[in-house]
Amino acid sequence: MKSVTESTTGCATVIFIDPPLRLACREALPEGTVVTVRGISIGGREIVVMAGPCAVESEEQILRTAEAVKESGARILRGGAYKPRTSPYTFQGLREEGLKLLAEARDQTGLAVVTEVMDARHIDLVSRYADILQIGSRNMQNFTLLEEVGRCRIPTLLKRGMSATIEEFLQAAEYVMKGGNHQVILCERGIRTFETSTRNTLDLNAVPMLKRHTHLPVVVDPSHGTGLWWMVPALACAAIAAGADGLLIEVHQNPAGALSDGIQSLAPEKFDVLMRDLRAVALAVGRTWLARAE
Amino acid sequence: MKSVTESTTGCATVIFIDPPLRLACREALPEGTVVTVRGISIGGREIVVMAGPCAVESEEQILRTAEAVKESGARILRGGAYKPRTSPYTFQGLREEGLKLLAEARDQTGLAVVTEVMDARHIDLVSRYADILQIGSRNMQNFTLLEEVGRCRIPTLLKRGMSATIEEFLQAAEYVMKGGNHQVILCERGIRTFETSTRNTLDLNAVPMLKRHTHLPVVVDPSHGTGLWWMVPALACAAIAAGADGLLIEVHQNPAGALSDGIQSLAPEKFDVLMRDLRAVALAVGRTWLARAE
Amino acid sequence: MKSVTESTTGCATVIFIDPPLRLACREALPEGTVVTVRGISIGGREIVVMAGPCAVESEEQILRTAEAVKESGARILRGGAYKPRTSPYTFQGLREEGLKLLAEARDQTGLAVVTEVMDARHIDLVSRYADILQIGSRNMQNFTLLEEVGRCRIPTLLKRGMSATIEEFLQAAEYVMKGGNHQVILCERGIRTFETSTRNTLDLNAVPMLKRHTHLPVVVDPSHGTGLWWMVPALACAAIAAGADGLLIEVHQNPAGALSDGIQSLAPEKFDVLMRDLRAVALAVGRTWLARAE
Amino acid sequence: MKSVTESTTGCATVIFIDPPLRLACREALPEGTVVTVRGISIGGREIVVMAGPCAVESEEQILRTAEAVKESGARILRGGAYKPRTSPYTFQGLREEGLKLLAEARDQTGLAVVTEVMDARHIDLVSRYADILQIGSRNMQNFTLLEEVGRCRIPTLLKRGMSATIEEFLQAAEYVMKGGNHQVILCERGIRTFETSTRNTLDLNAVPMLKRHTHLPVVVDPSHGTGLWWMVPALACAAIAAGADGLLIEVHQNPAGALSDGIQSLAPEKFDVLMRDLRAVALAVGRTWLARAE
Repeated sequence: MKSVTESTTGCATVIFIDPPLRLACREALPEGTVVTVRGISIGGREIVVMAGPCAVESEEQILRTAEAVKESGARILRGGAYKPRTSPYTFQGLREEGLKLLAEARDQTGLAVVTEVMDARHIDLVSRYADILQIGSRNMQNFTLLEEVGRCRIPTLLKRGMSATIEEFLQAAEYVMKGGNHQVILCERGIRTFETSTRNTLDLNAVPMLKRHTHLPVVVDPSHGTGLWWMVPALACAAIAAGADGLLIEVHQNPAGALSDGIQSLAPEKFDVLMRDLRAVALAVGRTWLARAE
Repeated sequence: MKSVTESTTGCATVIFIDPPLRLACREALPEGTVVTVRGISIGGREIVVMAGPCAVESEEQILRTAEAVKESGARILRGGAYKPRTSPYTFQGLREEGLKLLAEARDQTGLAVVTEVMDARHIDLVSRYADILQIGSRNMQNFTLLEEVGRCRIPTLLKRGMSATIEEFLQAAEYVMKGGNHQVILCERGIRTFETSTRNTLDLNAVPMLKRHTHLPVVVDPSHGTGLWWMVPALACAAIAAGADGLLIEVHQNPAGALSDGIQSLAPEKFDVLMRDLRAVALAVGRTWLARAE
Repeated sequence: MKSVTESTTGCATVIFIDPPLRLACREALPEGTVVTVRGISIGGREIVVMAGPCAVESEEQILRTAEAVKESGARILRGGAYKPRTSPYTFQGLREEGLKLLAEARDQTGLAVVTEVMDARHIDLVSRYADILQIGSRNMQNFTLLEEVGRCRIPTLLKRGMSATIEEFLQAAEYVMKGGNHQVILCERGIRTFETSTRNTLDLNAVPMLKRHTHLPVVVDPSHGTGLWWMVPALACAAIAAGADGLLIEVHQNPAGALSDGIQSLAPEKFDVLMRDLRAVALAVGRTWLARAE
Repeated sequence: MKSVTESTTGCATVIFIDPPLRLACREALPEGTVVTVRGISIGGREIVVMAGPCAVESEEQILRTAEAVKESGARILRGGAYKPRTSPYTFQGLREEGLKLLAEARDQTGLAVVTEVMDARHIDLVSRYADILQIGSRNMQNFTLLEEVGRCRIPTLLKRGMSATIEEFLQAAEYVMKGGNHQVILCERGIRTFETSTRNTLDLNAVPMLKRHTHLPVVVDPSHGTGLWWMVPALACAAIAAGADGLLIEVHQNPAGALSDGIQSLAPEKFDVLMRDLRAVALAVGRTWLARAE
């Protein structure tokens, strides 16, 4: 992968990937991939924010949240219809009904939609409603899913596994690309460490490391990366300063009443404040920011 | 789950599982599950050893290895036909051809067969050849796979995810059992830590912890748990001393020529020596051991 | 510690510290501690940068580096005279000779000096030359050292242990403060995780978490937190965006020839570029930045 | 360190230590070090058990516990007089008074004594009462302490740091040996991982890995390695099966009333049962076991 190992004291400064990446490596497209969906470019100069609830819960919830996040400047609506949950006895998502509600929210707001696909057999169904397919952390090495998503031509957001190394993450992207789907967005979402005060440890080292080794866009999910809503603004700003191309942020109308992940979801007013702060950081690091929705 | 929290200084001595397990918890079957396959009981007093190559590579390889491990006292043949590999460019297994070779080895030796299923759509196919379905570490939270395996009635070996907590591991077993498949064997195979001298850190703490919280049989894979063949004997003995019901060990005719994982595979002669040592440890901790094959 | 546990879904959003902090907790000084040294305020609105080589190596090296970092806007000179090294056979620092060179560099440039003290018996000596005592990661739980440093009245930079939790880090600060030394600066410098592509995983989650739980200033060391010089700028900007009060950055005249840590040291020209970028981020998040030295 | 890298598939099967160990490496003493104290040999064929409370609390406590563990077959009494505690507000040990009580217990029972030294300035004092100096996990890289202990000639038990790699552990032993003290015993006591159901993850992989790379004796502390008294027997047996030369086990007369670590301490009756079980495992793996005290 790295034809040149820049070394200052004999140690490699890049990672050694074996076997080498063929499609995902930086050298394959030095100018960088820009994923385009509904006129939104991810991986270009503009910072793109994807926001919405952990799970789609009801028509009112998703519509009102969609309107709120659009109002604050988000370009893409997130929301889970199929939820991978640790226990079989917890809320598993509204499934197809949830997909329909997402599409309805898209129609009303013009936001693009990203939502998770957990099973290769659901790809067709999810693709009918979503603009971007999300492959979740727990499925980052579900190789049959990666291969099948690689066979379709829908932009794909691939989340890093919670204990995946950077190399494994890139190899997972290579699986998708090998199938022909080159519209892959990588998402750092925190890794599992010994620290227990936060849900995960957001690994912002991953941002420049990925940027150096691949041409794919890199976004960051500070909601899962911290697990605590009040920490999200600080880490969202940090992610942009570290060079991320966008963010994935959980926003809920009523975090205290959320069916899942309420503790890490921002209320719309707090999200709105964050978006103003993010704009200042984005401009400071030479990125552009959407004019706020009029 | 834990009706009684035995506390000596105010700290819980058991883990708190939320929501509670209904089927996998110890209280649901205090006497313990015994999984029976081709007359072999896993979870009873006898220590059961599953051995064979990482991947099925050829007829000669699998037949000769099967005969060797049977000769040394193994009861079950392991071997991958579908291989989850980090890179899409490395050997992915012989697939259905590999399954046929496993079945042939079973016919010749009388050993039962355990092999991995990576995709819910392959369950029927794999079930035609295998006695035990293996769910690999990378799929421990592939919930659609867990649910589908739960719908069949074939004994299932569930490997712990490489960064799964004990609670997540038990919840994954609950997914399988919720579907009606109660023949689940849990397999500790090492976790991912900061230590780099070994491939994984074999977590033998998991053995008594699992035994206390669930009635399911627990086996240990010291091959993946160490990643180094010369460490396997020490950890195999340790696993039995810690209370494991069995072992999963990689054995290859010619480790230096293996297509995958040669470095962690024992040659048959070394496996034979290990089996004699294991017998002594098993008897010392009050377990029984198969009379060697005549 | 937390009189109020703000909960949205029943989970605590702050960490539970037991026994509670008495002196280091946020409630003890809600307005925040500002550590002042040679007219420089750490913990106020201004972002303070401490820069210099890993180790003091020679008079020419430390003087030229001091001049360069001052020129770029650093306020404090870092440099190790006593070096904790993994092996007893590697360079251990110039010791007292190194301290004298640091003092000389201070006299020539007006920069304040921070340097590590590894042994309680050296506190008097190091205090004669340094403005800030550094307690290194490996000594974060060297409780006798913490207690002795607590007895003197010199500002102290306490680095987080490489596997210390936030709670343990705060309790270590409490040890120093209990002795009467309240001038403590906390330094996040990366934690040890499974990821091997970087030396450590810089934990920027720690910044808002510490800020919430303590009134002490928080600085970040992206050099150790990444271990790779070309990643330092991205993470330095991220740290300021996350809310850090300052940075600790390794700079070396000639990284390729450094006796230690060359691979993570910035050359002075790259440091100068970084400082301009940092200024923009600092202003974007509402902090102030020193006018560049004329 | 490793003159030969045995490779089966091109990967090293031993760790690469740089700079190499000179004194601690296996090649320096292929037949292995046997540390002898009061006629007890650690590192020979006999399994040696060190047992006692976490902390010395009172004369009655330490004397009765000493008698009980001797009765069950322990050869060495453990007990902390100086306790490294996370918070400055918790019990820090009886200090010199605790040392005197340990010496009294030694006089009454004939057991040797191991106890921790936390500060180089206490070495003389602790040496007057102890037969073996313990360097605790938090001080494994307190290099000035390692050097000073290296200058005395008292057997030293060096505990692995909670996030120390095997290489760092061996380099720490090299520091002690470089000073001339070759009587070093290594102690695996659990590492810090993401798993929260146990206090630490006991790393029994470390036992064969250390045995291969060094000639020093290796003992295991299952009390800290699990943090739960009911798990100690399983892991103690496993440690011996893995090849450890001895054990360090916490035993307290009245675990529920212990001032520290009660939850991981065995009551004397449970310890007695364990010792019988351990004897069977020791003999099964070819080790010898002391005839029970008459």
